[in-house]
Amino acid sequence: MAFGEFDLIATYFTQRWPTRADVELGVGDDGALLNVPENNQLVVVTDTMVSGVHFDQQTPARAIGHKIAAVNLSDLAAMGAEPAWLSLALTLPDIDHEWLTSFSHGLREICDYYGCQLVGGDTTRGPLSMTLTAHGFVPNGLALRRDTAKPGDWIYVSGTLGDAGLALACQQQRCAVSDSHYRRVLERLYFPSPRVALGQNLREVASSAIDISDGLRADLGHVLKASNVGARIDVDEIPLSLALTESVAADTAIHFALSSGDDYELCFTVPESRRGVFDTLMARHPAKPTCIGRITSEPGKLRLERDGEPWETEDSMQAGGYEHFR
Amino acid sequence: MAFGEFDLIATYFTQRWPTRADVELGVGDDGALLNVPENNQLVVVTDTMVSGVHFDQQTPARAIGHKIAAVNLSDLAAMGAEPAWLSLALTLPDIDHEWLTSFSHGLREICDYYGCQLVGGDTTRGPLSMTLTAHGFVPNGLALRRDTAKPGDWIYVSGTLGDAGLALACQQQRCAVSDSHYRRVLERLYFPSPRVALGQNLREVASSAIDISDGLRADLGHVLKASNVGARIDVDEIPLSLALTESVAADTAIHFALSSGDDYELCFTVPESRRGVFDTLMARHPAKPTCIGRITSEPGKLRLERDGEPWETEDSMQAGGYEHFR
Repeated sequence: MAFGEFDLIATYFTQRWPTRADVELGVGDDGALLNVPENNQLVVVTDTMVSGVHFDQQTPARAIGHKIAAVNLSDLAAMGAEPAWLSLALTLPDIDHEWLTSFSHGLREICDYYGCQLVGGDTTRGPLSMTLTAHGFVPNGLALRRDTAKPGDWIYVSGTLGDAGLALACQQQRCAVSDSHYRRVLERLYFPSPRVALGQNLREVASSAIDISDGLRADLGHVLKASNVGARIDVDEIPLSLALTESVAADTAIHFALSSGDDYELCFTVPESRRGVFDTLMARHPAKPTCIGRITSEPGKLRLERDGEPWETEDSMQAGGYEHFR
Repeated sequence: MAFGEFDLIATYFTQRWPTRADVELGVGDDGALLNVPENNQLVVVTDTMVSGVHFDQQTPARAIGHKIAAVNLSDLAAMGAEPAWLSLALTLPDIDHEWLTSFSHGLREICDYYGCQLVGGDTTRGPLSMTLTAHGFVPNGLALRRDTAKPGDWIYVSGTLGDAGLALACQQQRCAVSDSHYRRVLERLYFPSPRVALGQNLREVASSAIDISDGLRADLGHVLKASNVGARIDVDEIPLSLALTESVAADTAIHFALSSGDDYELCFTVPESRRGVFDTLMARHPAKPTCIGRITSEPGKLRLERDGEPWETEDSMQAGGYEHFR
């Protein structure tokens, strides 16, 4: 008997994977049957990755499995949600057991770490791609949104920006960096860490949040548009890794941070009145987010400044964030 | 400025689409923010369709939009769930406005009819395919499952079986039928009707249910396996359309009904003790389901009979239901 769809799911995606008490039926029926906790809202996010677009032949299968989960959990984090259930639609050109072992391993590491359960999905034959829909909870009324930033709010970002973009530029031979820096930034491109704990900690202090998937400039732009406000950013405050600052010129590093994608850090705003609470909360946070600027009342206007003067240089690396079909 | 991802969503997938009161945030933030009604469980289903596998170049885009929603709503129906929210991941090789207009039209007709809201998703560039994740509700404890059929339960199917399979066989030039019959069966292949109302009506009478997507034999087989029971089917009771019976030999028609996919009817079981309630409920149903046999206590054993004698003939058309990777 040939290796079929049901064997595939049983072999790679169910045995010894984490299970949750709020899942009444997971993989194996027409649908999953799930219990959302009382006084919580459901948050649903979806991301697709396509071979040749979001990853290439040299990308390890384990990284692909990790990343399809990480990018979805990053969206949940940006909503302040606790991740719970995943549904995976996997399209494969053929059954490659080595690839499937590594891919499922990468996905499962995330499920194990965050206590998520794979509750369903679909497997089909076709050009390699995958769509994950992730479900999370947030207590009623506490979800973080992108349309609620207010003038005067302080703008923060987590981690450092631009590392994944540098790794991609190296792969595309637009940049060359030392081996040790390359290993470091490649890890960020292949195995991004969704800011799940930070997102949940921000529920009662942040006035808005978004995850940085298409570059700070583009994603902060979505917040400004949705909230009908502007922003002033001090480019020298943007957190950069040593790997980035030691590899490219100072202004190029800022461009990477502003315009390259795949960071999966959070960008969020905190009202002046919540800064004390925020600082107290963050005192025990391993990597305290960095304040990079402030929300203004000019709708849609993003001012980049250095020492209070406008900052704008030629962007030879990449203009604008990544948007499909543009 | 080129036509981008955000323009695409705004143009084809949000303006004047139905909205629901239980959606606090739909398309446009990092995720959708949703309220599941009290005392209800969430049901989540996912289906993918890939160009060249689930449809071909001659399939009208409106049919593809209809079908990706219909196959998911059919899964919800099989769980007894009320459909509510859809999340669409759409991968397109390029921006074809004519195709997008028709596709979105087909999808929207289903959303309008069933009062579903498209609450999120992803659009990416790549080989044409789409994954839809559909969400529905079912009152606590009333979901229909496939692992709860009991010996002695009566087996029913809705509608007629095998029509979509006949249409596909005609397209693949394995059959030839009259123009009027072809139009009729092609409509069933392209625009299947999910049995949403029936599924909800069965909540308190059926002991198990599944939707028939891969052929009656394969899908009833899933019920038998999950419930650890067997079944006896009278092949002459299987409901067939005039289009099918007038187009092929009698036994071939039965083979189509048993083994071809894409019917999207429901197959369900009713305990003897609930038959009176069931008949009363179905009296006002436009197309009363047909009783085709009974559950037995032989685990996994499907007996096909005619006049009480075993029925088994050469199956020259297609053996077994459709399963990917086999």
